[in-house]
Amino acid sequence: MARSRLTPEREAELYAAVLDLLREVGYDALTMDAVAARTHSSKATLYRQWGSKAELVVRAMRSSKPLHMDRIDTGSLRGDFLAMVSRVDDCQVEKDSALMRGLFHAVHHNPDLHQALRELLVEPEINGLHALLQRAVDRGEISADGSALKYVTHMLVGAFAARQLIEDLPPDQAFLRDYVDAVVFPALGV
Amino acid sequence: MARSRLTPEREAELYAAVLDLLREVGYDALTMDAVAARTHSSKATLYRQWGSKAELVVRAMRSSKPLHMDRIDTGSLRGDFLAMVSRVDDCQVEKDSALMRGLFHAVHHNPDLHQALRELLVEPEINGLHALLQRAVDRGEISADGSALKYVTHMLVGAFAARQLIEDLPPDQAFLRDYVDAVVFPALGV
Repeated sequence: MARSRLTPEREAELYAAVLDLLREVGYDALTMDAVAARTHSSKATLYRQWGSKAELVVRAMRSSKPLHMDRIDTGSLRGDFLAMVSRVDDCQVEKDSALMRGLFHAVHHNPDLHQALRELLVEPEINGLHALLQRAVDRGEISADGSALKYVTHMLVGAFAARQLIEDLPPDQAFLRDYVDAVVFPALGV
Repeated sequence: MARSRLTPEREAELYAAVLDLLREVGYDALTMDAVAARTHSSKATLYRQWGSKAELVVRAMRSSKPLHMDRIDTGSLRGDFLAMVSRVDDCQVEKDSALMRGLFHAVHHNPDLHQALRELLVEPEINGLHALLQRAVDRGEISADGSALKYVTHMLVGAFAARQLIEDLPPDQAFLRDYVDAVVFPALGV
């Protein structure tokens, strides 16, 4: 594997530089040349490791903001949701949400970025969420045919989107914890 | 009032032309010159009536997609929500959501559009929603101190956003009706 040639430290360094550049100039103006210059690596190396700017940027995002739902398994639904919320970094959330908003807008005219975000960032989290809910069903905590089960993603997306777009506030841990208790658990019949 | 000089028919005709242009070229490329040419009016008239491109576009949006929550009052919470859902035009919803997405992206670099959308489109609907919920509280249908009451907007925003962005499906009436029954009513304790 080409990627294995980079040490984890070097990879983390590269991702941090990509995110810095992204905050400075935005997705559209970010070039592989600039990443190469900033990280003292060659463009050939970057393309060999990541294939495209879209993939490099999304992997950098994923490394910096890892909800990693698939790694959450506390043994109870409440524990899992609290673990999820506690992975939100209150200090980072504002900085990152500006960055996410910028990426989200760039998606509009960058289909490859759209695909990378979907495949590398959104789908793994949604699959992790589904597995987490399935375990709660298997433990008998929630019903397999509850009508809200298929809408947990919608509820959570709403929390993040409305908090930022309408309330103009960061979706911090205190807000998310209250929202999960007020909306998600009652809808799931917990 | 300058605006009263236009007949409602003429106003509707102008708004329709603005939305056509918006679908054709997008917000950034839409000019007052193009609107004037398309509608056989003068730019001076357009600016006198609407003040700015942002206000003209948002008023055109509002005329075409009128949820008008503030005009919904059926006498019950369930009736009000069903009335709200029934105002969604399934045939229009896909066309309009492309248009809304385009506007939403243009907001990123057009603060005046952001402000007009917020003041003329978002806030009136949210105020209408709050009034609708307050009447349900007054009738004793839901509790004034229910913890989900302040999150109804978040739940609804989530329905629209996740349906389009993650499921890649239009938020049509059947979906919205199911979502309200599965998520909003249980969270409100109805």
